[in-house]
Amino acid sequence: MAAGGDEIETLIAAMARLPGLGPRSARRIVLQLIRKRAGQMAQLAALMASVAENARECLVCGNVSQSDICPICENPARASGEICVVTDVADLWAMERGRAFGGRYHVLDGNLSALDEIGPEDLRIPQLVERIAEENIREVILALSATVEGQTTAHYIAEALAETGVTVTGLAQGVPIGGELDYLDDGTITAALRARRKF
Amino acid sequence: MAAGGDEIETLIAAMARLPGLGPRSARRIVLQLIRKRAGQMAQLAALMASVAENARECLVCGNVSQSDICPICENPARASGEICVVTDVADLWAMERGRAFGGRYHVLDGNLSALDEIGPEDLRIPQLVERIAEENIREVILALSATVEGQTTAHYIAEALAETGVTVTGLAQGVPIGGELDYLDDGTITAALRARRKF
Repeated sequence: MAAGGDEIETLIAAMARLPGLGPRSARRIVLQLIRKRAGQMAQLAALMASVAENARECLVCGNVSQSDICPICENPARASGEICVVTDVADLWAMERGRAFGGRYHVLDGNLSALDEIGPEDLRIPQLVERIAEENIREVILALSATVEGQTTAHYIAEALAETGVTVTGLAQGVPIGGELDYLDDGTITAALRARRKF
Repeated sequence: MAAGGDEIETLIAAMARLPGLGPRSARRIVLQLIRKRAGQMAQLAALMASVAENARECLVCGNVSQSDICPICENPARASGEICVVTDVADLWAMERGRAFGGRYHVLDGNLSALDEIGPEDLRIPQLVERIAEENIREVILALSATVEGQTTAHYIAEALAETGVTVTGLAQGVPIGGELDYLDDGTITAALRARRKF
């Protein structure tokens, strides 16, 4: 009970269902929005309605934007013959923040998972195979998580692409920048040691 | 850079400014909303626009609701001759969740603060004095925080109401339910000892 009337309580309940929020943080946000209801709240509502109306998945790569082809796929400077395969849009955005990759992306929309009954046909793997030929791709970079599911998916894709003759690479595994050895798990240290490079 | 186009980035930036959220949590929320843009996101936007349009402060107590007089002030069953004074609406809602108080409220909209230059005229204290006479109030319960500013405000109100003859009380201070002595600060233990009760 928020004691503020039905609609305010409904809004708090709706906000509390968003990822990372709960009843307490939702109440705090809604109260702040109500304080600024003519400005911040009305703007946020309008912006949210507009994105709900206009957002769509890119027909080529699966990124979300406001057009059928996303700004990355539309940018001719990024047609470098390289496709970076990511699990979801959040990972694509994380790669973009790194500003290290100049090619295009392919969003899988998940990882293979026997437990969750997600098979190859549930991911956008057939579309990836099509793109290899159509876009004259030389290299596919698998930027998937270093988890069991991520690596299972990576192995599956590498096999699926074996016939196409494209070079398939994966992100290096090793010590993260700023990482202290003492705090790293054994698996990471082992991987970093195996992949050691000449200084 | 979220790589998702201008409007999506603007929405993420707007969400990231909400209390308790940052860029990472805002991105996560916006991505989830975009996934459910036809349902959850459109509903949330409409709800938020409606609350932004209709929310207002109660003319009597300062609670927020969708009417000029809030549901608590409008409820005749709550005209018990008791007013509970709280710092803000969040505290009013917290009191209501406890379901222990059956009277009406008065929201101050802040605490006295020399540092922030908040004087009595900035809070809703004159309105409180008016209500004492108009509503035939017997008891004013000061449910203010046990902080220096909260208690300064409480003392000021108690003095301002001294002439009205109304009974002024404050919340008990002591060991919180579930509280372990070992983890309590000295001030709380001292207050609980001084206010000890017969078992």
